[in-house]
Amino acid sequence: MNGRHVAVVGAGMIRFGKYPDASYPDLAQPAVVDAIRSAGIEPHEIDATFCGHSFGGMLTGQRILKGLGMTGEAIVNVENACSSGAGAFHQAQAAIASGEIETALVIGVDKLTQFAGGTLPLNVEDHEVASGMVMPALYAMRAQRYLHDYGYDADDLARVSVKARANGALNPFAQFRKPVTLEEVRASRPIAEPLNLFQCCPTGDGGAAVVLMSAERARRSGATPVWVRASVLHSGRYMTGFRDFTLPEITVRSAKDAYEQAGIGPDDLDFAEVHDAFTIAELLYYEALQLCERGEAPRLVADGVTALGGRVPVNPSGGLLAKGHPIGATGVGQLAEAYWQLTGRCGDRQVAGARIGLTHVTGGGIAGFDHGACAITILAA
Amino acid sequence: MNGRHVAVVGAGMIRFGKYPDASYPDLAQPAVVDAIRSAGIEPHEIDATFCGHSFGGMLTGQRILKGLGMTGEAIVNVENACSSGAGAFHQAQAAIASGEIETALVIGVDKLTQFAGGTLPLNVEDHEVASGMVMPALYAMRAQRYLHDYGYDADDLARVSVKARANGALNPFAQFRKPVTLEEVRASRPIAEPLNLFQCCPTGDGGAAVVLMSAERARRSGATPVWVRASVLHSGRYMTGFRDFTLPEITVRSAKDAYEQAGIGPDDLDFAEVHDAFTIAELLYYEALQLCERGEAPRLVADGVTALGGRVPVNPSGGLLAKGHPIGATGVGQLAEAYWQLTGRCGDRQVAGARIGLTHVTGGGIAGFDHGACAITILAA
Repeated sequence: MNGRHVAVVGAGMIRFGKYPDASYPDLAQPAVVDAIRSAGIEPHEIDATFCGHSFGGMLTGQRILKGLGMTGEAIVNVENACSSGAGAFHQAQAAIASGEIETALVIGVDKLTQFAGGTLPLNVEDHEVASGMVMPALYAMRAQRYLHDYGYDADDLARVSVKARANGALNPFAQFRKPVTLEEVRASRPIAEPLNLFQCCPTGDGGAAVVLMSAERARRSGATPVWVRASVLHSGRYMTGFRDFTLPEITVRSAKDAYEQAGIGPDDLDFAEVHDAFTIAELLYYEALQLCERGEAPRLVADGVTALGGRVPVNPSGGLLAKGHPIGATGVGQLAEAYWQLTGRCGDRQVAGARIGLTHVTGGGIAGFDHGACAITILAA
Repeated sequence: MNGRHVAVVGAGMIRFGKYPDASYPDLAQPAVVDAIRSAGIEPHEIDATFCGHSFGGMLTGQRILKGLGMTGEAIVNVENACSSGAGAFHQAQAAIASGEIETALVIGVDKLTQFAGGTLPLNVEDHEVASGMVMPALYAMRAQRYLHDYGYDADDLARVSVKARANGALNPFAQFRKPVTLEEVRASRPIAEPLNLFQCCPTGDGGAAVVLMSAERARRSGATPVWVRASVLHSGRYMTGFRDFTLPEITVRSAKDAYEQAGIGPDDLDFAEVHDAFTIAELLYYEALQLCERGEAPRLVADGVTALGGRVPVNPSGGLLAKGHPIGATGVGQLAEAYWQLTGRCGDRQVAGARIGLTHVTGGGIAGFDHGACAITILAA
């Protein structure tokens, strides 16, 4: 990391879910209040706010804070598709590391029930989207290729959902709190072969917030700090010709930079929150994050390595598959979970003795090829 | 200014106007190419891009750069209503000042012809908007109050348009290039009394870009640097009770901070580009920017003080009234104009001997009360 040390000192979120009658302020304000309260500060001590969202419209951060009487200072609204919230976090930690400010509020929020339903509303100017390459279709192609290349079957995908739902059942903030069996995943309705319904994250609404401080300010505050050891934001590379659809280049590159920034390796992680928008996504990201060699990911799930109680639990929160995926809120929700894990506040889903955790979001366009954005954060107690 | 010195080293923009068939990449790419070329660098030398827009949808910056083969690094999309482009500039200069990066690209872009026409699409969750307080109505109320309080009449407003159009006629990038007479302004159709059509900025589409560098990098590049002496971004304060509608608090506060940051006063300015979305707006901002005392602004226009050739030309580009106001593009367009003025490249609209210039944008909600955002930049040759 360049510059001053930065700490997460507070977090809040609402239970993700479907709140068709809620406004953006309704979704975000409870999370903001909880984050500030848990940091042990007053609202006026926030120097600047960074609000990540994709679909809130003009001045979403301002509208959220106005209702709390928090006005006057800089508010920056950041959009980066699924990385919007984590992108806002990246800007916030940079502003503190540089010495510009002492205390920042990061908000992540989005409301997908404002749309007609179905998959994420993508930009039809993209020729891929215009050709039908919406997210479930794209990940289904990746899944087909992966199963073919490495000799796995649909149950190897389905087990990711079983793990996610088991964790989500322990998380009061999760959209889905009911465990599912392998048989129930298999029996859920087909979406894009080999993915069926329970292998796709739900759409929904949510709000999450974290408070960041400089080390000096954190020490004075009395809040429990968790340290930002790496914060990386990249956009995807343009690629032509035959691509390896099972290698998410943007995550590979971002992970490499994040480990280098933090001065650690994948073996040092006690847990990770990764962008499991679909079961296959989680498996591909194991490999991109160097948790295993290519072609090995399904074995980590089958052997319980990434389950709660395993060597490196992945998505102890339930992940996008169980906790939900309200786009802008997702990355900040992961950071809230990581903060709580690293301060031992996760109750039944606590990763015992967690000292170092990683959060990862990526998305947009062909999900990180060509364009899109990826954000990886490494936090340490 | 905190941190390292930051320079603007290149600028580009398209002529603002109505381009209903253009995509966001179509509007922004020519500006990006010109800005990078004028900085004398190659596209791959950009470390990070900050894209300001309000209505482009997900990953607008990524879509713009993908078409230019500029992919891979961080792209941050920033939304702050009329301050979106200048807000992106603020993030970019902070990233360089902090030592995080050496070279940044700032894009401002928006396309208003995608909407049905009329005034800016505002969020109807705002109770003011729901009550009919759209921008022309709001500024008309301010104008009524101002004329009443200080004893001016409609011609004092109209003269601002005559000045703007005279300057715009000299600017190849302006949406309106035809001068208008006082009589023509008076005769244009009523919009919201006392404002008539020629006193309201047009809607339209546009793209603009600037390249920023650290001082060290700028010296090596050979480009002509213009120095960022102040960059201030604030949101509006929540105010209750009877307000003074003719005092734009957010601009007053931002200007004070900007002069302090730059270590100069309003008398040191050789020109300013201010947010004249309506004639009355320019007058109120003269006072908020301390170019004159309260109640004095119309005299500056009547006496030619702010005309080209006057003591402190305001909006030599033609301003929003003549150059146009494609929201996200506006602030970056101002910065491009300031860069060109300070490097003597403005042809017929050149402010002779310009050494220090200020750019100002503000907007959102009740235009900077309550919420919204304001960005002020001071640049020096």
